[in-house]
Amino acid sequence: MTPEEFRRYGRQVVDWIADYQEKIESYPVLSRARPGEVLASLPAHPPERGEGFEAVLADLDRVVMPGITHWQHPGFFAYFPANASGPAILGDLLSAGLGVQGMLWATSPACTELETRTIDWLAELLDLPARFRGDGAGGGVIQDSASGAALVAILAALHRADGGTAGREGITRRHTLYISSQTHSSLEKAAKVAGIGSANVRVVDSGPGTLAMAPAHLDALLAEDAAAGAVPVLVCATVGTTSTTAVDPVPEIGEVCARHGVWLHVDAAYAGVAAVCPELRWVNDGLDGHVDSYSTNPHKWLLTNFDCNALWVADRAPLVGALSILPEYLRNQATSSGEVIDYRDWQISLGRRFRALKLWSVIRWYGAEGLREHVRTGVRLARDLASWVAADPGFELLEHPPFGLVCFRPRWDGLPDGEADAATMRLMERLNASGDLYLTHTKAGGRVLLRMAIGAPATGDAHVAAAWRRIREEAAEQAAERADPGR
Amino acid sequence: MTPEEFRRYGRQVVDWIADYQEKIESYPVLSRARPGEVLASLPAHPPERGEGFEAVLADLDRVVMPGITHWQHPGFFAYFPANASGPAILGDLLSAGLGVQGMLWATSPACTELETRTIDWLAELLDLPARFRGDGAGGGVIQDSASGAALVAILAALHRADGGTAGREGITRRHTLYISSQTHSSLEKAAKVAGIGSANVRVVDSGPGTLAMAPAHLDALLAEDAAAGAVPVLVCATVGTTSTTAVDPVPEIGEVCARHGVWLHVDAAYAGVAAVCPELRWVNDGLDGHVDSYSTNPHKWLLTNFDCNALWVADRAPLVGALSILPEYLRNQATSSGEVIDYRDWQISLGRRFRALKLWSVIRWYGAEGLREHVRTGVRLARDLASWVAADPGFELLEHPPFGLVCFRPRWDGLPDGEADAATMRLMERLNASGDLYLTHTKAGGRVLLRMAIGAPATGDAHVAAAWRRIREEAAEQAAERADPGR
Repeated sequence: MTPEEFRRYGRQVVDWIADYQEKIESYPVLSRARPGEVLASLPAHPPERGEGFEAVLADLDRVVMPGITHWQHPGFFAYFPANASGPAILGDLLSAGLGVQGMLWATSPACTELETRTIDWLAELLDLPARFRGDGAGGGVIQDSASGAALVAILAALHRADGGTAGREGITRRHTLYISSQTHSSLEKAAKVAGIGSANVRVVDSGPGTLAMAPAHLDALLAEDAAAGAVPVLVCATVGTTSTTAVDPVPEIGEVCARHGVWLHVDAAYAGVAAVCPELRWVNDGLDGHVDSYSTNPHKWLLTNFDCNALWVADRAPLVGALSILPEYLRNQATSSGEVIDYRDWQISLGRRFRALKLWSVIRWYGAEGLREHVRTGVRLARDLASWVAADPGFELLEHPPFGLVCFRPRWDGLPDGEADAATMRLMERLNASGDLYLTHTKAGGRVLLRMAIGAPATGDAHVAAAWRRIREEAAEQAAERADPGR
Repeated sequence: MTPEEFRRYGRQVVDWIADYQEKIESYPVLSRARPGEVLASLPAHPPERGEGFEAVLADLDRVVMPGITHWQHPGFFAYFPANASGPAILGDLLSAGLGVQGMLWATSPACTELETRTIDWLAELLDLPARFRGDGAGGGVIQDSASGAALVAILAALHRADGGTAGREGITRRHTLYISSQTHSSLEKAAKVAGIGSANVRVVDSGPGTLAMAPAHLDALLAEDAAAGAVPVLVCATVGTTSTTAVDPVPEIGEVCARHGVWLHVDAAYAGVAAVCPELRWVNDGLDGHVDSYSTNPHKWLLTNFDCNALWVADRAPLVGALSILPEYLRNQATSSGEVIDYRDWQISLGRRFRALKLWSVIRWYGAEGLREHVRTGVRLARDLASWVAADPGFELLEHPPFGLVCFRPRWDGLPDGEADAATMRLMERLNASGDLYLTHTKAGGRVLLRMAIGAPATGDAHVAAAWRRIREEAAEQAAERADPGR
């Protein structure tokens, strides 16, 4: 494709995206495609001769779009948001256009140094403790996801715990990790990946009301395991759990970890970015204590398109120690000088994209002010919804939501718990099938709840109000059908 | 950023990239930035108020570009190419604009099904055996890189070897991997990550001339380790090594692996895509035998921008067995039905971008014909260069290069080996500092060689001829300086 063709088709694609943004509400949020439908609409064999890009765009509309669930739709309330803002998309486009690969400092110094600066900016915006910034022993790095960040933290912790023995000899004795029942599943997956084993992931009690990890039980488990000869590697505390945005008591957990000399990783994948707002900066409580690594996702709620996770470590030595390998073909003067960072030593894979460009674009376009405004809007909309739910005698609300996630369900008066769960699931499926909104569910306190996560840039007051109206209507309809199955 | 603003700035960015493509030869290939220079040019603090996107583009030119090493420059011959073609960039832009996340089939069915179809197309273009296609027990998936693919293959192999015991209990006995001295360093890194340990990576002899893995030695090592009670997990054969594009004898290695019941992973990161050309389809030799997983990178030589690795497995059950975890908040009807693929179970992280769009765009724009033409051009240019090197009495060539990589060095008549190595390194540094071209080096047969990897879409006959002229001139100049240090 010549530069002139790129110019022409590039404009078409930009217009296609702008048009998509303008008409996104005309699509059903959740795709109605049935399994295999998109696949069957695509030719079984690749083309022998090249086609014009118009053909790609035409098939995008015809074949791909019916199979898209619209994460940027204002009625997308499922999972957590995955904000793809304009400046982020353009930053990503610049990265693709430059086509550089930042595995080493030498392979594009700006790719490394813009990342160092931008991640320090983010640390400042979130008011993280100074030791996480790049000018001391610590530093930050962009990872693909909170899953990747957790795995990397575990490997660094393992390296610190045994001086690199496991990396050299393999895991030869029992190593243990500590989570709660509310911790993200990626920690259990990382335990499998790292050869620690899911059976060695110890589940610390969490309070039945708060769903927050109990430091005393953690303390007891750590003592018990160490006494039994295991090597406790890492404790993962969560600020803003996936299920209900519960918050673990990081200060107290940090004290326990300090006492036992265990690495504390704080997973604030969703909620960490809320610290851009001074009034929400309590999410950082405990980070100035004994915390070894901290992770949050600008690609969820901070207007940066997937993937862009930020991981900080208080000490980069064990991280690099765990992940560095230097074959002959990667040797170069800059690396040998020790004056530069090679981010390949901070991640699993060798190659890396220039992801800092999109985070840089986002921070510059919105400024601290704009980022705060975005988070505040999400929190305000969630509080509005929570107040409507709390005021409705037909619904019950799970506690006061601190961020953008509201968990609730109809009371389904008179139904036993199991049937109420099934009715709630049925309600969710009806709502999702309507195309007006997309919710997910979770279980808390043994009961099924609807999860409504607010935070897409396109979502405003009217969308949340409309969604609440639809939920009430559909719940009332469903209750009426149950009361009179024949109608 | 409103859709109208996105339209305006999007065009500016598209034009910026087209301009960059047009003027790329005016930049020095290798950045001349010194460590810390880009960092020092960036404000220490993030902006409080948002700025226009013009400011971002201005700083891109002023601060970032001097720190860029230009991977798309026609004089970029370092590492392997990382082709960022127009249709790939636009496919990636569409992915960013849609902003969907394909962790589950349900979170955007088209994201999964377009990937299934496109990766099957690629399998057909490469003429891979039918068992790697998605309609049987196997299937393909896009990974971030060959590093990620190798790690995933190891985890699947581990799962098959012990029925999931290591995933549950952790690694409790000695597990071994088999590579050669020419295997990519990501295998050793994966061994550290997976808890197997770098000391349990067994290095099989490779022939001194061919640098190809010796099946008989592999056989002996496997027998020895099994007899000593270790669990051999995986053998990695390489088609087109990073150092010199050496090719391991996959058919013979496959027979050894079959005899020992060990997983064979074939890493064809760079060279695998050459199979789009029937005359290069010998790179697939042995894939119809006992091969369990196969990986190649469209993001190197097949016109698709980083990241886009293709991994195929002959049996997806151990892969999913090793990597599947299903927390409540990810449960959904489609997953429960068993009718769909959830690619999160085929990779380390949970979240995933819609990378199939760029591979789909590339295959449709170029067609099989265009892809073949691109690979053939690289091979032809490399053969031209090799013939010039071979014909020059002042240079020596490492064997006949089968793909786009040519390894060679001046003879440095009269210099002992150590000094010749230093002189070759010095020559490389002088050439790289000139800004005209960018080469890397490797060691083969104990001697330092220049690596010149041809395959950027912008590289044509004139660029290779000019590079060869510069290399000869610079080598002659350096030899003259040595002969007369005072001049």
